[in-house]
Amino acid sequence: MKIGILGGGQLARMMALAGIPLGMEFIFLEPAAEACAAGLGEHLHGDYNDPTLLAELVKRADVVTYEFENVPAATAEFLTSHTLVFPPAEALAVAQDRWIEKNFLNHLAIPTPAYAAVNSLAELTQVMPSFGYPAILKSRTQGYDGKGQSVLHTEHDLANAWQILKGVPAIVEAFIPFEREVSIIAARNRSHEIVFYPLSENHHRKGILRTAQCLPNDSLQAQAEELVSRLLNALDYVGVLALEFFVVNNQLMANEFAPRVHNSGHWSIEGAQISQFENHLRAITDLPLGSTAPVGFSAMINFIGALPDIKQVLTIPNAHLHSYNKKPRKGRKIAHACLRTFTADALQDGIEKLRALADITDKS
Amino acid sequence: MKIGILGGGQLARMMALAGIPLGMEFIFLEPAAEACAAGLGEHLHGDYNDPTLLAELVKRADVVTYEFENVPAATAEFLTSHTLVFPPAEALAVAQDRWIEKNFLNHLAIPTPAYAAVNSLAELTQVMPSFGYPAILKSRTQGYDGKGQSVLHTEHDLANAWQILKGVPAIVEAFIPFEREVSIIAARNRSHEIVFYPLSENHHRKGILRTAQCLPNDSLQAQAEELVSRLLNALDYVGVLALEFFVVNNQLMANEFAPRVHNSGHWSIEGAQISQFENHLRAITDLPLGSTAPVGFSAMINFIGALPDIKQVLTIPNAHLHSYNKKPRKGRKIAHACLRTFTADALQDGIEKLRALADITDKS
Repeated sequence: MKIGILGGGQLARMMALAGIPLGMEFIFLEPAAEACAAGLGEHLHGDYNDPTLLAELVKRADVVTYEFENVPAATAEFLTSHTLVFPPAEALAVAQDRWIEKNFLNHLAIPTPAYAAVNSLAELTQVMPSFGYPAILKSRTQGYDGKGQSVLHTEHDLANAWQILKGVPAIVEAFIPFEREVSIIAARNRSHEIVFYPLSENHHRKGILRTAQCLPNDSLQAQAEELVSRLLNALDYVGVLALEFFVVNNQLMANEFAPRVHNSGHWSIEGAQISQFENHLRAITDLPLGSTAPVGFSAMINFIGALPDIKQVLTIPNAHLHSYNKKPRKGRKIAHACLRTFTADALQDGIEKLRALADITDKS
Repeated sequence: MKIGILGGGQLARMMALAGIPLGMEFIFLEPAAEACAAGLGEHLHGDYNDPTLLAELVKRADVVTYEFENVPAATAEFLTSHTLVFPPAEALAVAQDRWIEKNFLNHLAIPTPAYAAVNSLAELTQVMPSFGYPAILKSRTQGYDGKGQSVLHTEHDLANAWQILKGVPAIVEAFIPFEREVSIIAARNRSHEIVFYPLSENHHRKGILRTAQCLPNDSLQAQAEELVSRLLNALDYVGVLALEFFVVNNQLMANEFAPRVHNSGHWSIEGAQISQFENHLRAITDLPLGSTAPVGFSAMINFIGALPDIKQVLTIPNAHLHSYNKKPRKGRKIAHACLRTFTADALQDGIEKLRALADITDKS
């Protein structure tokens, strides 16, 4: 079984590491010459819309998936009409555009913050009174890790925020004074079987995820499972999907979803019976899904910008290093560590130590 | 950090899968064209004593290790005099010859079955009265998975058994009516730190390991740790080592040791905090060793000859498949499955189901 992946970054790398023990082989289509997944399979080096490479991918792979949602529509169309592609193209199309995404969520009665599409500074100025301040202005497409986002504190911020977006179609969203941020990772396979991971509590700084902690038995688990099921079934989804929420008054309000394996589920490599990466591959290859039961207490800490001293990481009891073999660069996700402990206290102790190490090299 | 490995089979493959998340890269020297580790690093294709390839390995790798002990002495010598090689050449030399190995163990007061070296049928006939029947005749070198071994039931078996060995130097050993077979996996790093895994109880059939089960809190754990420590320190060992025992009258009697990661420790991939593969790599690269604490209840079942239906394997709760991507062949280790369960009952249930699947395809 050969799996084609659009993208050759760390998510593709971790999919391959999960799939190789199942006997799978991998082929990556990735524009970057130094793709960190490249050593784990074949690297088709070129653009996502290169017709020769796409034809090669279709010919060689039994099924195609992707590690990020910003795949050109024409690419998804070509692949879908020539081979098996999971998740389905509709999930990509919805997730690529924040306005379409929020419309879709609301159509399914999945609550979201108030929002409006804005195509000009005039439109933005016009809608703001109904939102109040603060509010968030985001590009409708291509945003990730907080890129293309501005907080609007007063009406004096509007012109500058609009200029930063360089006139691309945007969305303005009500600012949510959330109690916490959580996400649910779920997998749906080709037989429509669904499994849910325990909720993850996520801590961001400057728009980048820093820490994600597995929350077994959270009181919002059932609510999250019900909401993500609606989304999976409406999209006739196949694969792993992550749905991110704000928690307000102990209720879930959807922020966005990612039609792929997700950074907030990396703890599942050690912290769940079967990881999100293996379950994504099982889902798209028509295999039964594996147990998502938590194993011990677990959390994930991102290393941003550069790798800390490996010896210091590995000295922390029950820390598991996952390096992506990427060159250091400010704000770049270089590696993460998973903690899997036997007590809640040991987990908190490990999180503090790993955060301290992460803070040394993180200049973002 | 680039790791050179002599051998490119499943042990090398699993070392690479454990080392890649640590940011390590791999280069394999392996005579077989279809090396199952080859997709995880560079494959130097040729003999273990090819001087050009050995020079290439020395040039490219920061440290060299091996996945099997039958490395030609000249190869080990060349590597040792040109680069860092772990485990040390002496451990190889001792483990390669059953007679030297048993002398070494007895010198350290590690009890073994009675044994004698025999170089001819006449010598064999002469020593047999002091052993009695049954006894085991084994080639001194090159034996694995029960190859090169004959059981001697009566004096009439001697001539035939000797002929099967084709005149190679041999060893005769007293037959041990053991209660069970266990092994201990231990790791010693370059700073002489030592960690021990829980004992594994091993079940063989026709000389091939079929099932290994992790035994947390076994009453013989302390005795095993004491014995393997003597061996590790005497060899100034660096890396993972497996010491196999017969249990007789609830006492340990050493059978043999393997200076490498070992089939009876494969359960540690899911069943221990840090696997034998990762701890071997940490040991040889001067990193701190990781916790060997058991995670749940675990066992490993080998798939011999051919792979069972993957869907059936993955339907068994908490089963983890490890395929080696090797072509089916009678008696060949093709894959294994690890079970990691939350109760002892679930483990026994899973072992029975996996053994039933393994028996379908195993024609050995």
